[in-house]
Amino acid sequence: MDVNEEGLLIILSGPSGAGKGTICKRLLKEIDVKLSISATTRKPRNGEVHGKEYFFITKEEFEAKLEENEFLEWAKVYDNYYGTPNEYVEEILNDGHNCILEIDPQGAKKVKEKRPDAIYLFIIPPSMQELEERLKGRGTETNIEIEKRLGNVCNEMEYLGIYDYVIVNDIVEKAVEKVKAIILAEKCKAKRNNYYIF
Amino acid sequence: MDVNEEGLLIILSGPSGAGKGTICKRLLKEIDVKLSISATTRKPRNGEVHGKEYFFITKEEFEAKLEENEFLEWAKVYDNYYGTPNEYVEEILNDGHNCILEIDPQGAKKVKEKRPDAIYLFIIPPSMQELEERLKGRGTETNIEIEKRLGNVCNEMEYLGIYDYVIVNDIVEKAVEKVKAIILAEKCKAKRNNYYIF
Repeated sequence: MDVNEEGLLIILSGPSGAGKGTICKRLLKEIDVKLSISATTRKPRNGEVHGKEYFFITKEEFEAKLEENEFLEWAKVYDNYYGTPNEYVEEILNDGHNCILEIDPQGAKKVKEKRPDAIYLFIIPPSMQELEERLKGRGTETNIEIEKRLGNVCNEMEYLGIYDYVIVNDIVEKAVEKVKAIILAEKCKAKRNNYYIF
Repeated sequence: MDVNEEGLLIILSGPSGAGKGTICKRLLKEIDVKLSISATTRKPRNGEVHGKEYFFITKEEFEAKLEENEFLEWAKVYDNYYGTPNEYVEEILNDGHNCILEIDPQGAKKVKEKRPDAIYLFIIPPSMQELEERLKGRGTETNIEIEKRLGNVCNEMEYLGIYDYVIVNDIVEKAVEKVKAIILAEKCKAKRNNYYIF
């Protein structure tokens, strides 16, 4: 056996606009890693597929799972629930794959309570100015929303204490290399290899 | 700045025959890392250069340094002293280079007391059988010495608790990749990047 074959749970977090999504897409192509899929009660948009973008479930189903403590974290945004199903994550890990959770810092903080053993990565843009430019560049938010997101960054930085690693996403290729190195290094951690007794 | 530019102190240890030396040589060629040089009171052998293989110093000089607590670790083997000069290691680290200490597990344990912040890597052969073959293959030890070394491995395993990472040196290229990944990952550790406050 090369390295410990149990999958790692990797929490990829950071302020919106830091580039979490881009890094995730690259990782999915380049290494053995699977992305956790959230459950939601919102209706699927055009082209969205159950089990791909989201698990689309009813409000009743979601609340039943909530009762059973079946989410690693969850939130209610306006009238819709969103949550990370524990079962799906466990399935990926038990199959020996690494599992990535791409999540905002508030969500990451909640996951930390249930899975302190996961690996917490904080992706940050090289500067606030760069972050503002990226948010404007993607053109999905209004100026008011962008202002709000930028204001949020300072609050999100409060959660920095829960993270194991910080990755400055200046050049995306380098950021991806760092995440890959972190995964390989974590697999070599002594605590994951303590069965090597002669 | 890309990653934290302070040099890392990397302790590369493991039983003799595990392949520490080969891994070290590769690392020196491939990445920005410098090897710590030991001081010794033994006479230089043919071709050995002061400041390359060892710092060759007198018994009086060594004992004066001992008095001043100037070694990260030291040992007396027969009539000769061997030790790792703290000053040289600090110089490398302060210049922003990573510094590797290739050392046996007894020495690593002593270094841990003075530098618990260093990164401790334990290199192991894939099996005891493989270790025996390697030791016989290099032809530098007698059969009795080899038996002694093999017997020692179990004692050395007692020190496993001090290590952060375990690397099974099956294929040397893969082992080197792992050490490189560990160095890059360690540079991304949140504790080394806590100045990233917006």
